[in-house]
Amino acid sequence: MKYSILGTGAIGGFYGAKLAKAGFDVEFLFHSDYEFVKQNGLKVKSCDGDFYLPKVQAFNSTAEMSKSDVVIVGFKSVNQELLYKILPPILKENTVVILIQNGIGIEDDFKAKFPEVQTVAGLAFICSAKTEPGVVNHQCYGSINLANYSCKDKSLFDNVLQDFEKAEIEVHEVEYYEARWKKAVWNMPFNGMTVALNTMTNKLLANPVTEKLIYAQMLEVIDAAKALGVKNLNYDFADKMIAMTKAMTPYAPSMKLDFDFKRKMEIYYLYTRPIMEAKKAGFQMSKLEMLEAELRFIESQYAN
Amino acid sequence: MKYSILGTGAIGGFYGAKLAKAGFDVEFLFHSDYEFVKQNGLKVKSCDGDFYLPKVQAFNSTAEMSKSDVVIVGFKSVNQELLYKILPPILKENTVVILIQNGIGIEDDFKAKFPEVQTVAGLAFICSAKTEPGVVNHQCYGSINLANYSCKDKSLFDNVLQDFEKAEIEVHEVEYYEARWKKAVWNMPFNGMTVALNTMTNKLLANPVTEKLIYAQMLEVIDAAKALGVKNLNYDFADKMIAMTKAMTPYAPSMKLDFDFKRKMEIYYLYTRPIMEAKKAGFQMSKLEMLEAELRFIESQYAN
Repeated sequence: MKYSILGTGAIGGFYGAKLAKAGFDVEFLFHSDYEFVKQNGLKVKSCDGDFYLPKVQAFNSTAEMSKSDVVIVGFKSVNQELLYKILPPILKENTVVILIQNGIGIEDDFKAKFPEVQTVAGLAFICSAKTEPGVVNHQCYGSINLANYSCKDKSLFDNVLQDFEKAEIEVHEVEYYEARWKKAVWNMPFNGMTVALNTMTNKLLANPVTEKLIYAQMLEVIDAAKALGVKNLNYDFADKMIAMTKAMTPYAPSMKLDFDFKRKMEIYYLYTRPIMEAKKAGFQMSKLEMLEAELRFIESQYAN
Repeated sequence: MKYSILGTGAIGGFYGAKLAKAGFDVEFLFHSDYEFVKQNGLKVKSCDGDFYLPKVQAFNSTAEMSKSDVVIVGFKSVNQELLYKILPPILKENTVVILIQNGIGIEDDFKAKFPEVQTVAGLAFICSAKTEPGVVNHQCYGSINLANYSCKDKSLFDNVLQDFEKAEIEVHEVEYYEARWKKAVWNMPFNGMTVALNTMTNKLLANPVTEKLIYAQMLEVIDAAKALGVKNLNYDFADKMIAMTKAMTPYAPSMKLDFDFKRKMEIYYLYTRPIMEAKKAGFQMSKLEMLEAELRFIESQYAN
């Protein structure tokens, strides 16, 4: 199987490098790092042990890349229009596209553009960052949940699971809609609140006032998911997420890093879209609506 | 009538100086400005014309002050314990205390400490600040609404109204509970949001996203007030407040100034207390609850 990594950053770079290290045929698309990686290869500094790929199949345009069996998308969701534009050259019949992206509604929008393409949702549980050219900094965790969104050929999906396992990636199959909303229970409170209050996860949970607020926001997400028909998701999941985050090392979620580096934030798929979906089902996410507005204001102050 | 100003700052300083200028007998309590004012007098830079009082009855302790007919309290509500402590020496039978302070529940708490003292709620509509020792900087507006909270002797209350008019202060008599909640419709959104987003009123209203949020927060205050039995307060009041604020010069509310100067913010009477009162009446102020939590977090980051 030919793997193609679109967006070789903290996420795409990590999973792509693991697959390449295990001997799979992996092509990587780079943007600013292209020349550097072509000369110097790709390095992964990892809590599980550093490794180095001196030669990688590096490209700076999908027009040069091979037709792909499995495309792994590690782009931020603010770049979906670019994804839609550069993807077609590497598609063939039966290509599977794994969207490792945050938020709600990503697969539905992708399907509207590429109705025939088999799609998998990827939910990464990983702390990693691209801190310098050609280097992925993997701090902790690293598992990925894959959900079959529209793979008609189930054996293809199963092959991907097996390949990830062979590449020593902890991988689980999960139910699509439930998994997306479960991830939103963590993502919606912590991504936005670390930006709104310019802080880290540990400080939000060290203060009982903000811990209570984060918890209330998690319940809003759970209530929204329930209104949308998600099963197996109850308030105790919020308790679990709070406890897990307290056990984590102080963490700046991806949106906080985007804010710190004055990059566009993933407000649409992380907030606007789930808030819209919930509203259609008759549930108002009141506090998260407010957080969305604060984030849009904050972005407008630096993005201009 | 003997007037006594407790807290000669942006508010107490302005109204006290207007009364003194009109010839009334006014004693002023100062803290850090005491020596300066004793030497140099009190200056009011005003949009209505500057004026200067070269000699004022300045004190730095209520123990030295006369018994008072009318006490005007210009303290921030974060200093209520101090007010309760220093007030008794200037009280006599029939003293009227005017609490020119922001928030909900101030008079009820005052009454619990001084059940016999006749109390008036003062709601100032003024842009002013104390920017340097002995100088009150009055930028615009200046009217004050007075509400009879517990004046048994109505003629005393009427005398105060007349004195204010003689001092060329625009004064109106208003209904207590309705007036406090009406003021909260403006205060709760703008004080906190200018802090949470570190901005000014005009920028919040220039962005449709935050304008919509401010409007939603205003409706929350109106709904809370209605749940608490306030009459004559409808959603169109929110439209009026938005239009008025758009017509105002860019403004930093008092809480924003407290934040800028790293002073304690009036979170309790402006947020905690009205949110509690509304909850008792069965209404949850969801967005303002979130704003309260953000403010407490922000204060905890600088107040320690």
